[in-house]
Amino acid sequence: MEIKPIAFIKTNFKEKFGIPRQSGIVENITGEIVFEKQFRHPDALRGIEEYSHLWLIFDFSLNHRDSFSPTVRPPRLGGNTRVGVFATRSPFRPNNLGLSCVKFEGVKYDEKLGNILIVSGVDLLDNTPIYDIKPYIPYCDCKPQATGSFSDEFKDYKIEVLYDESVFFGIEKTDKENIIKIIEQDPKPAYKDENKEYNFLFSDYEICVEINEKTAKILKINKI
Amino acid sequence: MEIKPIAFIKTNFKEKFGIPRQSGIVENITGEIVFEKQFRHPDALRGIEEYSHLWLIFDFSLNHRDSFSPTVRPPRLGGNTRVGVFATRSPFRPNNLGLSCVKFEGVKYDEKLGNILIVSGVDLLDNTPIYDIKPYIPYCDCKPQATGSFSDEFKDYKIEVLYDESVFFGIEKTDKENIIKIIEQDPKPAYKDENKEYNFLFSDYEICVEINEKTAKILKINKI
Repeated sequence: MEIKPIAFIKTNFKEKFGIPRQSGIVENITGEIVFEKQFRHPDALRGIEEYSHLWLIFDFSLNHRDSFSPTVRPPRLGGNTRVGVFATRSPFRPNNLGLSCVKFEGVKYDEKLGNILIVSGVDLLDNTPIYDIKPYIPYCDCKPQATGSFSDEFKDYKIEVLYDESVFFGIEKTDKENIIKIIEQDPKPAYKDENKEYNFLFSDYEICVEINEKTAKILKINKI
Repeated sequence: MEIKPIAFIKTNFKEKFGIPRQSGIVENITGEIVFEKQFRHPDALRGIEEYSHLWLIFDFSLNHRDSFSPTVRPPRLGGNTRVGVFATRSPFRPNNLGLSCVKFEGVKYDEKLGNILIVSGVDLLDNTPIYDIKPYIPYCDCKPQATGSFSDEFKDYKIEVLYDESVFFGIEKTDKENIIKIIEQDPKPAYKDENKEYNFLFSDYEICVEINEKTAKILKINKI
């Protein structure tokens, strides 16, 4: 089946490094969903304001591969344990479809782009193609009795983030909080990596951070 | 983007009439997910048994349309109120992708077909193409604080099902319970329909039922 993007999401994640490993983890990070011209009809959103959360079905656009690998190595398991692809939410999967639950914050109207959906708790790369948007329906989507394998153990997993207050000089409070939360999620790659110093982009910043086993130290933040 | 089925699900729903309007509503109705040859690798399911629920991304295969309609008329609103397609889970949508949460019941091995996933609470037509299977991760997918518009009001909506005990003569208890639950969900079409008598197929049965505003009467059940 041929599917085509109905929209693209604009986010502050300019590269994969730093993107939360699930949606909803860094609650205040927002994204803007801009519809493709064909789907920009205002009526297509009628009633959406009555829902608090939305599902996005999207393209893991940086993870296209030609061959099928039946297993993946989840970063949360240290990167060496192999798990079946259908037992994970890994981006390396047949059909490259991602699924995220985001909070619906509102609609803003733009003269050129029409109605734009504002959502928060995003874990999507800037410009990710969106194939579908569906409301979160609590009585069928919320399963308080569900159990979740290793994801249960790691839901509160965080590393300690150290920094000198001066690195945040001139940076807005929300940006500061988001940067700290992104690093707290331990963005280092799962594979053994001798490098402990990483530079990554978030919003208008280039962040230089040293990440060890259980701590991270923010070394420098440059406005770009 | 071209996507192709990784599996097909076998269910007892041989036609659209009678399929629950959301997953999980008729809990005991099971389905069997048979993988396509290319994805039949046993390792692809490694670890899946540790999850209680799964997401299925599937094809609303009977609802393909060439044109985009920005609004739909949800049956639960009587079929006359128009709501934006992105504010509903309607099958009439761009890209025809469906999303259902099902309970994972286990894996059975078949010599010819490999590992088959048994799931319950299904709302899918027999032979629906499946594009992805993902584990339900409680800490990001379960949002007890979420609110859900009109879906909240209708979550316990049921009509009364009347029948003479004799119509179920020779029919197994589970089948009987499932048939009653299917009809309780009020499967009549939303559009004004003078006809009150419907025949529909479920499992090995052809069921004849008269459905009025708030009650239904099972008239006959034939084993086929």
